[in-house]
Amino acid sequence: MEKTTKILLGHGSGGRLTHNFIQSTLLKKFDNPILSELADSAVIDYQEKIAFTTDSFVVSPLFFPGGDIGKLAVTGTINDLVMLGALPEYISLALIIEEGLEISILEKIIDSISSYAKAAAVKVVTGDTKVVEKLAADKLFINTSGIGRLLTSRKLSVKNISCQDKIIITGNIAEHGFSVLAKRKELDLKLNIKSDCASLNGLILPLLEKTTGIKFMRDPTRGGIATTLNEIAEASNLGIFIDEKNIPVSKKIKAVSELLGIDSLYVANEGKALLVVVPEEADKVIRLLRRHPLGKNAEIIGTVVKKPAGRVILRTVFNTERILDMLTSEPLPRIC
Amino acid sequence: MEKTTKILLGHGSGGRLTHNFIQSTLLKKFDNPILSELADSAVIDYQEKIAFTTDSFVVSPLFFPGGDIGKLAVTGTINDLVMLGALPEYISLALIIEEGLEISILEKIIDSISSYAKAAAVKVVTGDTKVVEKLAADKLFINTSGIGRLLTSRKLSVKNISCQDKIIITGNIAEHGFSVLAKRKELDLKLNIKSDCASLNGLILPLLEKTTGIKFMRDPTRGGIATTLNEIAEASNLGIFIDEKNIPVSKKIKAVSELLGIDSLYVANEGKALLVVVPEEADKVIRLLRRHPLGKNAEIIGTVVKKPAGRVILRTVFNTERILDMLTSEPLPRIC
Repeated sequence: MEKTTKILLGHGSGGRLTHNFIQSTLLKKFDNPILSELADSAVIDYQEKIAFTTDSFVVSPLFFPGGDIGKLAVTGTINDLVMLGALPEYISLALIIEEGLEISILEKIIDSISSYAKAAAVKVVTGDTKVVEKLAADKLFINTSGIGRLLTSRKLSVKNISCQDKIIITGNIAEHGFSVLAKRKELDLKLNIKSDCASLNGLILPLLEKTTGIKFMRDPTRGGIATTLNEIAEASNLGIFIDEKNIPVSKKIKAVSELLGIDSLYVANEGKALLVVVPEEADKVIRLLRRHPLGKNAEIIGTVVKKPAGRVILRTVFNTERILDMLTSEPLPRIC
Repeated sequence: MEKTTKILLGHGSGGRLTHNFIQSTLLKKFDNPILSELADSAVIDYQEKIAFTTDSFVVSPLFFPGGDIGKLAVTGTINDLVMLGALPEYISLALIIEEGLEISILEKIIDSISSYAKAAAVKVVTGDTKVVEKLAADKLFINTSGIGRLLTSRKLSVKNISCQDKIIITGNIAEHGFSVLAKRKELDLKLNIKSDCASLNGLILPLLEKTTGIKFMRDPTRGGIATTLNEIAEASNLGIFIDEKNIPVSKKIKAVSELLGIDSLYVANEGKALLVVVPEEADKVIRLLRRHPLGKNAEIIGTVVKKPAGRVILRTVFNTERILDMLTSEPLPRIC
């Protein structure tokens, strides 16, 4: 791909360009062991270990089936903390608002933030409000940063992953991305796809008490499971073998994916986690996950292998094998 | 003022509308004792107390004499932590980038963030990058959230303030706002006003070891010292009497203020602090401040009084007295 001097939408895709930008620009400048973990949250060693995370949300439209930008922000930040094995406790809320936005819309979104924060026992403890003139931003952008208390003394880290570990997805994929896309194309009533946007604290945190077999977790948001699996493969320098027929996906999503020609493996999830689990515990983890409504479709979808190091291999439903690459450009901008 | 159903620029002014929006919408929804302190950072009681803060930056233009959006973000977040008596340690960095931005511009800004973070021994430990399509945002918005370790067991709180306490400003006012405005109007070369944008950790934190007389601190950013003084008066339910002739302001700023008809008291500072100090310690604090380059123009500018409760009274340079009100609308949008 040609080198670009301008920021492309792909730089925000969560895929290859984002990855390169982070590696070549951000990590070089801000090199420190906490950031270079490139986990969803930073873990900060006070006397008690805490996790710290940030995310901006620029989703368009602001409301979509199954959620809105406010729910997305709170649950997204909660999930980033949960992925580190932290109990989410405090979040910040920073609003960048376009002049002229209806206050009733803002209030609806804030209600949503409030109710999902309360449901997860998370407190909004600091905030900031900026308003920019008309056309200088698109309606509303939200940043939520979060702090959580680390629950587990075992460090969840991509460095713990080894061959034969199992890859688990906690449920059906691609529902968030397609729900936003359907809304945007005004196909939402026809397609009736709801975003999976949800807080994962209730599903994941109890699990960590019942098994020590989980080595690493990440929520496959922008770029979908394909991108997250590639990140895990690269960071662990191991291969990942995925069996497509085991990936849980609803019939509706399959149909939309074919209709629109967009591969579900690259489409954002907002209420799912990928877990890397020791092989002996994988079945137990699946059993535990399926007891919870958010985990009822959990499946083992793959295995960590030695080679090809840093790559993801997909055995397709047609029984062929191919490399599953990271996303390069952005098929679905502003999905979160 | 007529009630509005739309977001106005004034909602982001840091003045009355912002205040009302926070009170009527945000505080109602997210009511908790940490947030309702409405301090610049949240203080979170882990085993060791930490402070937590967030700010988004939407300044236009991205570069101005004395700084840029990156320097502004880092120093602004550092200062919010310092105002609570916390040693800034960790920040997050979330970028919302307009598609098409020159990467070289972004790199310059990231260099700036990196160097000011390093200078203050602050680590960027987590981040997020979003790109939106052309015209959906104006070039670049930055959110930085920060965590610091509380250095002082004495709690700095507006609730400690009492009558006779002295109000101190650490230096010349209004330089940030006028520098951005001059750049925007392409008067920058002619007026040659540099933003005061600076990290206050080196000025303020050593001070807290040398005196126990400081009761409260706040950096008078958006809305200027007039707005911050009003916030202090309201929150403490005491009056504040300010003597205009003691307010340090450069000749250049005085001239520009008259030229443009904008009152310096409402113009943003980005490297200044307002301190509320017990009367016995005020002279000592001034002496200590003046030893540091960032505090060389520090002055006692006023006194806390019993009445009128919640209001700020200004004795003008013409020896008349008037109520100094909070900002209602936004004279200078996107100053930070």
